[in-house]
Amino acid sequence: MTHGEDALVARLQRALQRHGRGVVAGIGDDCAAVTGPGRGLLLLKTDCVVEGRHFTSRDPAAAVGWKAACRAVSDIAACGGRPAHALVTCVVRAAQTKRWLDGVYRGLDKAGREFGFDVVGGELSRTDGPAVISVAMTGTVARRALVRRAGGKPGDVLFVTGVLGGSLASGWHLRFRPRLDEASWLVANFRVRAMMDLSDGLASDLPRLARAGGTGFVIDPKSVPRRRGASLKQALGEGEDFELLFAVPPHEADRLEREWGKRWPKLRLTRIGLLAAAGTREGLGRARGYDHFA
Amino acid sequence: MTHGEDALVARLQRALQRHGRGVVAGIGDDCAAVTGPGRGLLLLKTDCVVEGRHFTSRDPAAAVGWKAACRAVSDIAACGGRPAHALVTCVVRAAQTKRWLDGVYRGLDKAGREFGFDVVGGELSRTDGPAVISVAMTGTVARRALVRRAGGKPGDVLFVTGVLGGSLASGWHLRFRPRLDEASWLVANFRVRAMMDLSDGLASDLPRLARAGGTGFVIDPKSVPRRRGASLKQALGEGEDFELLFAVPPHEADRLEREWGKRWPKLRLTRIGLLAAAGTREGLGRARGYDHFA
Repeated sequence: MTHGEDALVARLQRALQRHGRGVVAGIGDDCAAVTGPGRGLLLLKTDCVVEGRHFTSRDPAAAVGWKAACRAVSDIAACGGRPAHALVTCVVRAAQTKRWLDGVYRGLDKAGREFGFDVVGGELSRTDGPAVISVAMTGTVARRALVRRAGGKPGDVLFVTGVLGGSLASGWHLRFRPRLDEASWLVANFRVRAMMDLSDGLASDLPRLARAGGTGFVIDPKSVPRRRGASLKQALGEGEDFELLFAVPPHEADRLEREWGKRWPKLRLTRIGLLAAAGTREGLGRARGYDHFA
Repeated sequence: MTHGEDALVARLQRALQRHGRGVVAGIGDDCAAVTGPGRGLLLLKTDCVVEGRHFTSRDPAAAVGWKAACRAVSDIAACGGRPAHALVTCVVRAAQTKRWLDGVYRGLDKAGREFGFDVVGGELSRTDGPAVISVAMTGTVARRALVRRAGGKPGDVLFVTGVLGGSLASGWHLRFRPRLDEASWLVANFRVRAMMDLSDGLASDLPRLARAGGTGFVIDPKSVPRRRGASLKQALGEGEDFELLFAVPPHEADRLEREWGKRWPKLRLTRIGLLAAAGTREGLGRARGYDHFA
């Protein structure tokens, strides 16, 4: 005989398959125990989706689980790493049934299968307010492959993958694919000096990348790749694009553009400008990204 | 110029000191990057506190941060490990000011100083409902020191540390000290076959420990150590005790009791019963632990 929470945990656990390696103890112990990154570095990331802000009660539960997981995968990709293990905290309303949670876990499991991580633990709790799904994820990266926000130099060429803006209207925010393989390929083949994923909009995220490296930036707003139907304001400020923003030294830029098209013919890569001397901030105008606390 | 969220992150970051080692990249990058556990195992745990359930708006914010961190430390201790790094997700109401978040981070930092972990990242978001503070924590443990819930054998002696019950009424749930040093000492000096921390009450947690090992249990309810003023029902079922429940082989039990008193003279250790053949469940009566989903 198991109580409600134990039975629910067992039910959710059945939705999860093993996609990776190195799990010594998983769901059902006080902690998960896994093998570490060996001589590499361990990447740690946590991210959450809040009902009414990042998803609605009308969105398919599996898409909510997919999004919750893929947000963290996107950050691990942007550091040059690969995801390994995930812990999931679900704080849910009474109206969110077991079936809804099953759906969330199906989405988490699908993301684990696609991107090679295992859900090894989590926590369930109740709330009277909006549901919160929080995903903590580990990843691994070789020391020499770690890419940070800092590291860009004035003159480095700025690129973005994909198209920006209209993520909410198009539903991209629920079904995006983190640029994991693309980021691994970039780091393996080019000198990527600085990289991050675009989650709050270029107008918030580019200044962060520049500030982290002690540089400024000059971009051409007309060059910013927009999703069909998205305005420039949306492309700069809406957020939830989950594309890569990165900087490479000038002599790498041409070779990258040539090789990108051969390797990733279906995904657009756009040169949007340059890093510049500290203090220079050109091309964003008065655009602002998304800020929970503005 | 930084936006609201960036400024808030910078403010909270100032509350955090470095208590451990091995942080290559921390707050301000897409992920934290840290050194791994070497040849040992990596422990992973996530736990959350929800306003109105695990704390109230009248509780001191620093105590809320302390509790959020120490719940995870308690689980890492119960696996025989030591905490290393933490990620903190704060989903807060508009009425929860910067000062309230400062307090939460002071509590997190204090726990880090006491128990030797660093907060290396996190996430801030807004909610219109109860606040949620979720802490994901890593730890390290030598392979031979890992203790799980499974592993107990019929005849093993069951012990609990401290006293049980009355955690809410006494305020223990906000100021408890995870039994980290005690657990490390136990694992280093005795054959601890199974261990867990008591978070949902002995009446929920003991059956979990027994089930994990394929055993039953016989306890003497009169032997269960109670906090002053707590009834047996409260000691068995209230939860949030954050004491250790563990099983050692019979020949270790007497030696443990002698040495415990010398090493930990201020902390009670109580023999409450034995693991037994599967199916045997004696001594809990109709007591039930806390269950979010009962």
